Amino acid sequence: MVSFSSSANALRSSEIRRLLSLATRPDIISFAGGMPNNDLFPIKELDDIYKSLSDDLKKTGFQYGPTPGYPPLLESVKAYLKRKGLNVENNELIITTGSLQAIYLIAKVFIDPQETIITEDPCFIGAVAAFKSFQANIHGISLDENGIDIALLQQALDNPELTSKILYITPYFHNPAGIIYSQDRKNELIETLQNRDIILLEDDAYGELYFDEEDKELTTPIKSVADEVLSICYTGSFSKIFGPGMRLGWLLAPREIIEKCSLAKQGIDACTPTFTQIMANEFLMQNKLSGYVSMLRKRYAQRCKKTLAAMDQHMPEYCRWTRPKGGFYIWVTMPEHMDATKVLEKAIDRGAVFVIGSAFDPQGENNHHFRISFSHVDEDKIEQGIEMIAAAIQSVYS
Amino acid sequence: MVSFSSSANALRSSEIRRLLSLATRPDIISFAGGMPNNDLFPIKELDDIYKSLSDDLKKTGFQYGPTPGYPPLLESVKAYLKRKGLNVENNELIITTGSLQAIYLIAKVFIDPQETIITEDPCFIGAVAAFKSFQANIHGISLDENGIDIALLQQALDNPELTSKILYITPYFHNPAGIIYSQDRKNELIETLQNRDIILLEDDAYGELYFDEEDKELTTPIKSVADEVLSICYTGSFSKIFGPGMRLGWLLAPREIIEKCSLAKQGIDACTPTFTQIMANEFLMQNKLSGYVSMLRKRYAQRCKKTLAAMDQHMPEYCRWTRPKGGFYIWVTMPEHMDATKVLEKAIDRGAVFVIGSAFDPQGENNHHFRISFSHVDEDKIEQGIEMIAAAIQSVYS
Repeated sequence: MVSFSSSANALRSSEIRRLLSLATRPDIISFAGGMPNNDLFPIKELDDIYKSLSDDLKKTGFQYGPTPGYPPLLESVKAYLKRKGLNVENNELIITTGSLQAIYLIAKVFIDPQETIITEDPCFIGAVAAFKSFQANIHGISLDENGIDIALLQQALDNPELTSKILYITPYFHNPAGIIYSQDRKNELIETLQNRDIILLEDDAYGELYFDEEDKELTTPIKSVADEVLSICYTGSFSKIFGPGMRLGWLLAPREIIEKCSLAKQGIDACTPTFTQIMANEFLMQNKLSGYVSMLRKRYAQRCKKTLAAMDQHMPEYCRWTRPKGGFYIWVTMPEHMDATKVLEKAIDRGAVFVIGSAFDPQGENNHHFRISFSHVDEDKIEQGIEMIAAAIQSVYS
Repeated sequence: MVSFSSSANALRSSEIRRLLSLATRPDIISFAGGMPNNDLFPIKELDDIYKSLSDDLKKTGFQYGPTPGYPPLLESVKAYLKRKGLNVENNELIITTGSLQAIYLIAKVFIDPQETIITEDPCFIGAVAAFKSFQANIHGISLDENGIDIALLQQALDNPELTSKILYITPYFHNPAGIIYSQDRKNELIETLQNRDIILLEDDAYGELYFDEEDKELTTPIKSVADEVLSICYTGSFSKIFGPGMRLGWLLAPREIIEKCSLAKQGIDACTPTFTQIMANEFLMQNKLSGYVSMLRKRYAQRCKKTLAAMDQHMPEYCRWTRPKGGFYIWVTMPEHMDATKVLEKAIDRGAVFVIGSAFDPQGENNHHFRISFSHVDEDKIEQGIEMIAAAIQSVYS
């Protein structure tokens, strides 16, 4: 047998797969899936768009497109990002096969084996998978309810043994932590990173999904205010505002970085699917986004409220959890001696499932947390499911 | 500025981009694009399929899918591959974002920097890009009209300084060489590779596009006859039988290889677009493939015939070229002192474009060849375009 590469040998199948496979059992109430709710997808809008496509546009959709993206979509995403305050003139844009691919491209063009990437802890699983596939060492920095711990970050940046090229963060409705960075924390972060040779990789997959209009301001991208003083690569996605099955994301970054990413993409998949790019472009151009996203905000806010109410009522008093202002996730912290896997086993017996905390720890260790995702679960079953989880915790630690 | 990774530094922008950008000028007759003809895409079938989709299926299309692929598509592609004689039971299948991603995944899970990959020379550009992005050394072996040169291959395999893990070949309607392997050559290849620790990466993107029913037999995959004696990874694609804009390909390979590829894909794009997988699955399940591909065979055969007739009439007698039995490409060989770039410059002046030979040489050197693609050019302009190219050759070397 031919031997695998060093990077392939570093890849490990995770426990989370087995756990998530349970989430598809129809009798299980699943808070595991970090995905939009199927009943909220814009089916009607898709039908309208499909009907509006000319034969020429359909032909274009069947064809290869340029590696950086379908040109009209590049323009409409640029216009969208400009409305969010981003400087699209001084940067370059590339459409990627989901925003995970944008993160992967950054890893590919910057990371050599054994180099360090600083992330938050907990951290988005897909990004950790991308970084580890290049044999990166991941140094996680804890989060509190306002964002990354600045003192710990400062220590890591000052540590000559770490010399990290990239700091990866998800400041808006964090997966799995459910928090949003405060304005103060963003300012401190900008100050901390200034005059350092490090790229800030800012992942904004959930920013549109704020529940209250008054929190919109918190979703202002760091790249929109600190692009002059920091080197920032900004990723976004259609996954939460259209649908992840379209596999469409983007990366806004300095020109020389996009050029390298585009060259790398030529060897990865040549181009992002043209057909879904056309659908997404029409979604933007036919002004379907804003009405659709307003609806989503209300519906996810309602699900979140219901979940928090059930947790307030049923969860043991020694548990704490975040109270999200947007997004899909609630992060539950149990006392340190408790183990989420044990709780999960009991929860599955009772009929509910979630994702254990160690899955989101870059080191795969810390396991007295777990993630509750309220986005995909059947709304009528939220209370029943939370009751099962609460009972599971109490049955393990009575 | 943060420094790029070693692999990103190895990536270079190619001359071919500038040349291909000329191919979009409306007044240029382009034999450059290696893509299907827009007017041949199955628009009517797509409309039928879209109309037949239930709301539930559309919702599934909007959603994330499993990393190895949308399960019904995995089943329908398996059934399709079984009809081609492939052993799907003793292998595992993964759906990829185009078959280039399948090649990329194999490179990612097997290649460490400076390791050698043996390819044909000339070779498909996308595969070279994928291999080079892992800093592979590429050792090209020349082709003749019946396939790879077995004596040279044997030499390379026996050379202890090369020790290559992978042999990458495109035996069916080669891009750019336009040839198909003879049965004898396939047998010799199988014999040569036996009892060696090497993976055969068999790229079958064009096999369905034979022009005559009697040549169908030649498209029998090596994997379907030699799976017991060789380690073969077999890639295929919907790009030439449905549309490349859907970005759908596959990899059929031993289970432990697919597992590593699937783990790697989790960090690259998480899953292939579900929406286009559903469309492709319906294309297969609603039995639209065979009628559509029969039509394609006739139409591409006709274009090929027209191109060859024009070449027979106009090209200088010192040029030779392949006479394809299928696919998209004719490979032109000029006398060794001639330079395709000089010819191309003159051809552009006259109004026609093609791709120079050095683009397909893994070392980027050999340039007395060029590729004529008859798939995408306007059929009515074939003769005029070939006349321009012939005149360009004669104007440089009169």
